[in-house]
Amino acid sequence: MSDLLQKLQWRYATKKMNPAKVVAQEKIDRIVEAVRLTATSSGLQPYELFVITNKDVREKIKAAAWNQAQITDCSHLLVFAAWDNYTAERINMMFDLTNEERGFKNEGWESYRQQLLGSYPARSAEVNYQHAARQAYIGVGTALIAAATEEVDSTPMEGFDTDAVDAILGLKERGLRSVVIMPLGYREEEQDWLAKLKKIRRPHAQFVTEIK
Amino acid sequence: MSDLLQKLQWRYATKKMNPAKVVAQEKIDRIVEAVRLTATSSGLQPYELFVITNKDVREKIKAAAWNQAQITDCSHLLVFAAWDNYTAERINMMFDLTNEERGFKNEGWESYRQQLLGSYPARSAEVNYQHAARQAYIGVGTALIAAATEEVDSTPMEGFDTDAVDAILGLKERGLRSVVIMPLGYREEEQDWLAKLKKIRRPHAQFVTEIK
Repeated sequence: MSDLLQKLQWRYATKKMNPAKVVAQEKIDRIVEAVRLTATSSGLQPYELFVITNKDVREKIKAAAWNQAQITDCSHLLVFAAWDNYTAERINMMFDLTNEERGFKNEGWESYRQQLLGSYPARSAEVNYQHAARQAYIGVGTALIAAATEEVDSTPMEGFDTDAVDAILGLKERGLRSVVIMPLGYREEEQDWLAKLKKIRRPHAQFVTEIK
Repeated sequence: MSDLLQKLQWRYATKKMNPAKVVAQEKIDRIVEAVRLTATSSGLQPYELFVITNKDVREKIKAAAWNQAQITDCSHLLVFAAWDNYTAERINMMFDLTNEERGFKNEGWESYRQQLLGSYPARSAEVNYQHAARQAYIGVGTALIAAATEEVDSTPMEGFDTDAVDAILGLKERGLRSVVIMPLGYREEEQDWLAKLKKIRRPHAQFVTEIK
């Protein structure tokens, strides 16, 4: 079994974390960097990542998330917050950054910019937000693996009041909407009902279809 | 730099693949297995994965995808297809499988089943599909990393006619909707305009907010 598959077997949605254990900053830095580096549609990176250690803020978020204990038992809470819309300003920002960093303008790339400018901003904010939120899930999948690689436990959570979390973090004013939160910490195995249960996935034959 | 970060730096959305190079079956198996093992909301795995080597089928999909050459230049085409809805049958299927595999019923887990049965099927098919599609993006993020780990190139694509691909693969009849397609193969570096260009990401400070 490859190292990646071993890490994916090792990880699980940790239900009880040890509040006394703190994830080292260098591990957090590598997890965050993996999310920053991974793919998004057209490379727009239409989301932002919040890394919250502040106890008061995490207490407030916990109250908006069915009091799930991992939110305060973890040492670092990630919040994935998607752009609420694709605007011309945001699209231009990424294309301008690309030109600046590469030091030249690419004709095909500029024509692609015009294609996006001509289509995305004309769509409804809701359609654009849904598209941006999907990209954030690529980041979620990346963070899960990056954490497991660091032998850090994580619990991706959708079960929270997104409006409340948006208000706690002031996301609306920044044109963002919370999508997924993810405590990072260390499992308290003896107190975690899920820790020792078998991971269940549909058999290969019910998940994969080969067309030869 | 960690091995994962190196792999994420190495990968890019390959624009030109070498049609003479075939990805070894064991590599494909490990990439698919990584997708099968990764997380989904409530563990429902609300999507399926298609692995297409058939040339005729890939030609048809290419015609529905702006004739992007990677679809036929690659050796294996992945198609991520999300459930078109959450039904009681699908939810029960995963909870029954879990009980069967673990060999016992867990009271908390059964109460969670009732919670999902009482909420998901009552929502619109469109809301449920959007939720399922997001989970497929965790799989997309996983497949990207798994491919890079195998030194296999990949190109995640949203730019295709989903209705046409659904028709080509008979997805509607199976209660599925195509979400992302991903050619897997090997880069033809000399003919790929993107291969040697710098990867551009927003700086850490513009992507990450720390709340201490």
